[in-house]
Parts: sequence; structure tokens; C-alpha cells
Amino acid sequence: MIKVYGDIISGNCFKVKLILELTGTPHEWIHTDVVKGDTRTEEFLKKNVNGRIPLVEFEDGTFLPESNAILYYFSLGSDYWPQSKRQQAEVLQWMFFEQYSHEPFIATSRFWIKFLDGKEQFSEKLAEAQPKGYAALDVMESQLKIADWFVGDHPTIADIALFAYTHKAHEGGFELDNYPAIRRWITRVEALAGFVAMPD
Amino acid sequence: MIKVYGDIISGNCFKVKLILELTGTPHEWIHTDVVKGDTRTEEFLKKNVNGRIPLVEFEDGTFLPESNAILYYFSLGSDYWPQSKRQQAEVLQWMFFEQYSHEPFIATSRFWIKFLDGKEQFSEKLAEAQPKGYAALDVMESQLKIADWFVGDHPTIADIALFAYTHKAHEGGFELDNYPAIRRWITRVEALAGFVAMPD
Repeated sequence: MIKVYGDIISGNCFKVKLILELTGTPHEWIHTDVVKGDTRTEEFLKKNVNGRIPLVEFEDGTFLPESNAILYYFSLGSDYWPQSKRQQAEVLQWMFFEQYSHEPFIATSRFWIKFLDGKEQFSEKLAEAQPKGYAALDVMESQLKIADWFVGDHPTIADIALFAYTHKAHEGGFELDNYPAIRRWITRVEALAGFVAMPD
Repeated sequence: MIKVYGDIISGNCFKVKLILELTGTPHEWIHTDVVKGDTRTEEFLKKNVNGRIPLVEFEDGTFLPESNAILYYFSLGSDYWPQSKRQQAEVLQWMFFEQYSHEPFIATSRFWIKFLDGKEQFSEKLAEAQPKGYAALDVMESQLKIADWFVGDHPTIADIALFAYTHKAHEGGFELDNYPAIRRWITRVEALAGFVAMPD
């Protein structure tokens, strides 16, 4: 059985939990705490030289890091990875958008507030992240105004990747009041067969 | 013929140029200048709501943004996208690493210095980016010490994605003196059939 090193309340790790549950993939979850330094031990760095979670360990003892690469691998053969090459590229487009234009502001703000209790300490960085995070939400809203899902007419790993931190955006100080299409999309994701919620 | 909106001296745009040349894909290049505001016009935002280059326009008038998603699309059917699912996931792993752990420090430092002439203005941000950029180079070096390419035994779009900003890292204040494996890999990429150099 595969092993997953991760912390379920990290959005990047939660993505992995979600695709494994949605596709019914058996796995062992090994709780790994970034704040306590679990990813910076000599032992962990041997598994992933980049010192990050989530990390998948396959049965043959090899490893795969990077949440969105893990989503790709476990979506193959399921409806979460489309058949059309053009739609595949669009799924990746949204996933790179997520890692470059969304996560560094929305996820990082949540990390500073929720994990490091640093609302004051990081106030300047939080202020800087606000317009950039809202710009990402604007881009999402413009897509979800015209379609139920990010690519094609059913959910893909682009939705899973973007759901992870968006549905907890308020914990990083981003309110979704002005994003009705995003809010409706969140309830659609939560209604998927096999969905599990992130614990508080 | 497809059109590419981009600036050849931007690493993210250069990636697209490189895959199109390496795979012999005909295209029209439309020079688009970020600093002059070309990507923030009403006309451009209609093409890409996220206001970024590179952007591909297909013959049917549809668009594909995000450099690494574009690399994926144009590598399909070539040796630059591997056959094995596990290797495919590893290619994406390195491409997400590039966008999350490498580009925001190494490319952004180059942008501040080379494009905005902001060595003084951005001195604090440049100092902050230094250890993070070198950490990314350390991860690359550890891989290239044990293999000629990032995934498998031949070049993939993971190499193209990482090459773009790494071979210009010195323009952002990152020296490669202590990275002999990276330097040897750069010469291997430059020797690929169809390779074109980024103009100065």
C-alpha cells in the first residue's frame, strides 16, 4: 500500500487525501508536522531533498513529491483527468495558476495566521498578499460565472487543486462574500461522491 | 498557424519558443512587452483574464496561457513528454517545483534587476530571495549530480522549464560557480538539435 506523508489541514496535503478518497485508492497516512520540523529532519530529507509535504512513498520505496504532480498521477484512468489533449493542457493551466498566482498569497496568509499565530508579526506581508490573493479569486470567479467546473463539463484535478485553499480562504483573511460563483462551486465540490472534509 | 504572445527575453516565454523550435512547430511570435503594459490593456485581458504572457492563440481563436501548460501541450507526441506514467508525474513534479520554489526567487530577482533596473529599490526583496533561490539550485544540483537529465535518460520539458531561468540566473545575482553539475547540464541543453539561444 502507498504511504502519504502529510498534514491533513495543509491544503496541499488535503488535495492528495481528496484524490485518493475520490478515486478509492487505499493508502496509509503518516502525519507529518511542518511547524514541529518533521520535514527538516535528516531522515525526511533523504526521502525528499526539497523538504516538503505532501510526499507519496510507493511500495517499491520510491517517492513522488509536489501535490499537483501527485494529483496528476492518481487521476490517470479516472474522470478527474480528461481525455482530450487540449483539456488536459487546460487542467494543467489552472494547476500552475494555483501554485503560482493563488497558493503563495491565499495559502501563505492562512499559514501565517492559523499555523504561526502571526497576524501581527506578518501584518506587512499579509497586507501585501491581499490584492494578489483577491486578483486570483477574481480570475476564478470569472471562469465559474460561465461554467460549473474549471475545465469541460465535469470535475477534474484542476477543481481539486483550487478547492483546497479556496474553501479555507477566510482563515487567511480572504472573504468570499463578493464571489457567489466560487461559493456555489465549493458546494458542488463538497457534494462529490467520496468527498471528505478537511478537519478544523 | 498558432500565434504566441510573448517576450523572448522573459524565461517563461523563452520556454515556449524553445519547445516550438525543438519540436519544429510553425508559429507566429507577437512581441508583447510587460513593462510597457501590453498585458494590461483591455484587448489583452480579453485574451487572458490573468493578464500574463506567454499566451498561445490557436487557429480557432481559443487561447492557452501558463508556460508550463503550453510546454505540456506541444511536447505531446514527442520525446520531451515521456511514455511512462510515473515519469510523466516526475516531469510535472519538477515543473511545479520550478514555478513554486525556483521562479519566484531566481526569475523575479532577474526581473527586478534587469527589467526594472531596481537593484537599490528592491534590495530588501533581493536579499530575501537569495537563500530561497540558492535552495532551489541546491535541489537541482543534487539531482544533476546523479543523472544527466531531470527525468529518465533523455531531455524532457522538465529540463526546458528549469533551463529557462537557470541559465540566466547570474542576471538575478545568482552565481553558478558552486554548481558544476548544473553548468554541465546547461551545456547539454544548449547542444540539443533545434536549440535557439535567448538574445541578450
